[in-house]
Amino acid sequence: MKFGGSSVADAVKIKNIAQRVVKKIQEGNEVVVVVSAMGDTTDHLIDLARQVSAKPPAREMDMLLATGEQVSIALLAMAINESGIPAISLTGPQVGINTDTVHTKAKILNVQNQRLKEELNQRKAVVVAGFQGCNEANDITTLGRGGSDTTAVALAAALEADVCEIYTDVDGVYSADPRVVPEARKLSGIGYDEMLELASLGALVLQPRSVEMAKQFGVVIHVRSSFNDNEGTYVQEVSGVEKERVVSGVAHDLKVARISIMDVPDRPGAAATIFEALAREAVNVDMIIQSTTRGDNKNDISFTVSQDDLATAIPVMERVGKILGIGQVAFGEDVAKVSIVGAGMITNPGVAAMMFSALAKENINIQMISTSEIKVSCIIKRDEALKAVRALHEAFSLEQD
Amino acid sequence: MKFGGSSVADAVKIKNIAQRVVKKIQEGNEVVVVVSAMGDTTDHLIDLARQVSAKPPAREMDMLLATGEQVSIALLAMAINESGIPAISLTGPQVGINTDTVHTKAKILNVQNQRLKEELNQRKAVVVAGFQGCNEANDITTLGRGGSDTTAVALAAALEADVCEIYTDVDGVYSADPRVVPEARKLSGIGYDEMLELASLGALVLQPRSVEMAKQFGVVIHVRSSFNDNEGTYVQEVSGVEKERVVSGVAHDLKVARISIMDVPDRPGAAATIFEALAREAVNVDMIIQSTTRGDNKNDISFTVSQDDLATAIPVMERVGKILGIGQVAFGEDVAKVSIVGAGMITNPGVAAMMFSALAKENINIQMISTSEIKVSCIIKRDEALKAVRALHEAFSLEQD
Repeated sequence: MKFGGSSVADAVKIKNIAQRVVKKIQEGNEVVVVVSAMGDTTDHLIDLARQVSAKPPAREMDMLLATGEQVSIALLAMAINESGIPAISLTGPQVGINTDTVHTKAKILNVQNQRLKEELNQRKAVVVAGFQGCNEANDITTLGRGGSDTTAVALAAALEADVCEIYTDVDGVYSADPRVVPEARKLSGIGYDEMLELASLGALVLQPRSVEMAKQFGVVIHVRSSFNDNEGTYVQEVSGVEKERVVSGVAHDLKVARISIMDVPDRPGAAATIFEALAREAVNVDMIIQSTTRGDNKNDISFTVSQDDLATAIPVMERVGKILGIGQVAFGEDVAKVSIVGAGMITNPGVAAMMFSALAKENINIQMISTSEIKVSCIIKRDEALKAVRALHEAFSLEQD
Repeated sequence: MKFGGSSVADAVKIKNIAQRVVKKIQEGNEVVVVVSAMGDTTDHLIDLARQVSAKPPAREMDMLLATGEQVSIALLAMAINESGIPAISLTGPQVGINTDTVHTKAKILNVQNQRLKEELNQRKAVVVAGFQGCNEANDITTLGRGGSDTTAVALAAALEADVCEIYTDVDGVYSADPRVVPEARKLSGIGYDEMLELASLGALVLQPRSVEMAKQFGVVIHVRSSFNDNEGTYVQEVSGVEKERVVSGVAHDLKVARISIMDVPDRPGAAATIFEALAREAVNVDMIIQSTTRGDNKNDISFTVSQDDLATAIPVMERVGKILGIGQVAFGEDVAKVSIVGAGMITNPGVAAMMFSALAKENINIQMISTSEIKVSCIIKRDEALKAVRALHEAFSLEQD
């Protein structure tokens, strides 16, 4: 059971979760609970850091931020104990969630299950701090925003759990964001690949990394509401029938920035130089588009990054620009990404064309296109994004079961 | 360098400490800094715990409270970095401060110095979380209120440091509490045993355990102000001259509770049963007085505990009372302890008599007396304690150098 920061924002909410955990155990389950930091604790800590340092070292940020989850687990373990079920809290390092050394964005390398199993065998509710781990230097690392989902899936995998329940403030995964498309439908089930595309594309119900990991280890994720007992959406290997749905959902991501590089020398290694430099700074690059060769031995390359990463990416691009003798780098912040996702797409030709036609009907210009076997994404002007989502939801009749 | 919670209460104060640490390093020193939790963080965390649980498990309290120091060390390390000196923060478990398993009151068993030395060798300021350690189950423990002093001395011992500087909100150790006795004099030096008695007796400049440990490992402690650069008081093995001062100071402790047990069976093991039961609950017993045998095979036993421990001690005493068939247990909360301390006392007879006479002159009744080689303590009515301190300070002419 994984609960986010809003679910543990105060003592009353923590007690509610404790009740929910106790009920689950009394129904005969063994339970590991993963929690995030309380409410706005993380923002408060980041604010403190900024007060003492303009650019705090990433290692010290991790040391600081990891306290947020540690407070939550201690309080939740107390509340569960108070409800009559023995409980124990464990930090990421105590569990043995071993990560690489990329502070503030660490990746999980492996998870020990010995301590978890010992505590479960003693009939305890085990409460684990999300978002954090430990690198080989015995330093505390954090997994980046939303990393608690990843923690939950990693623990479920390490314990071969029957299900990994992710409690959120929404009822499940919808065919589009219900705030944008009122007719959006809750999906009872969805495949890993589809969920992965949706997660990557801005339907931020689940961290993409957590879905990737769930796919790799066959962990069944149940995305459900923290406010009621309704069934949510099961993310798992899809059945044959479900697979035939051509398009499952429409996703959008408003926090996208576009970077365009003009006149990149058309020689082997140029692209590698650019994207290796970004990777070294841990900037995730999403869509990459290179124009066809223009005949003058120079190319234009465009790609997108998360808007949050733009500040990091700009100096990298300027540095790389000088090395490669690039003409000009342009940054676009007024863009968004809209995408359609569906596992059935691969066997149904013409889906992309239907999407482009639906957008054209709304007079929406497409700046970049990227496709995979189960999704088509378009970069468009940001202020046209929500209109685009509604048009696509209707065009593919996603309101119908 | 050890700084308490009030010295790291906000970002400005943390930056000030950072400056102080940087200066110390620029003067050519290798520095390990120990800090407590910011301001009232610990109280805030305790309050949160009470909101979710009437009696939070001690292990979870430690998990919770340890976050306070972790926030401080991360912020101070950031601030020192910002001042141009590389710094790294380490939690108690990361340093390898290994303790027993008595949660919330753990004792340090040993301190590893490998990680500390590695970081110092890299010319880093090392910022360590006070108050916390790790037991053999890999669980976080805390050392009890004021345990940061103990952490500082333990690290100084493990590193064979030249000096352990304890920064406080007072200038040093005084012949009495200056708030009670305006004429009180700052001592330039004091021996471990005297300091130990003073610390135990309520002059709460230093944790008694920290002084004990300093004595055991020959750590020189410099108690000094966090507000200025004045020399404070050196606590170390005293010279021959200083030793001849008969009385160094007057201490008082208002947070004392008296427990009196009537009609304890006069047989071997009765006292052991009582005090073993208290020890199991980690209640520290201070003065113990047993009346001479009354001829009816029954004794009265009186002892004192910290007032904070009284709530824990009462049910223990009631349980033990039934086992032993004790007549009656009386609890007195309106008492205080006043003491005179001096290494020269041992070679100067009549010091105790002078004390009793000074108290008698003020019409103060003595309820219990306890003596050691270098101190005499009296339990008196709490509302007479401050008057008693002033009378004793004057009687022994402690205002004179």
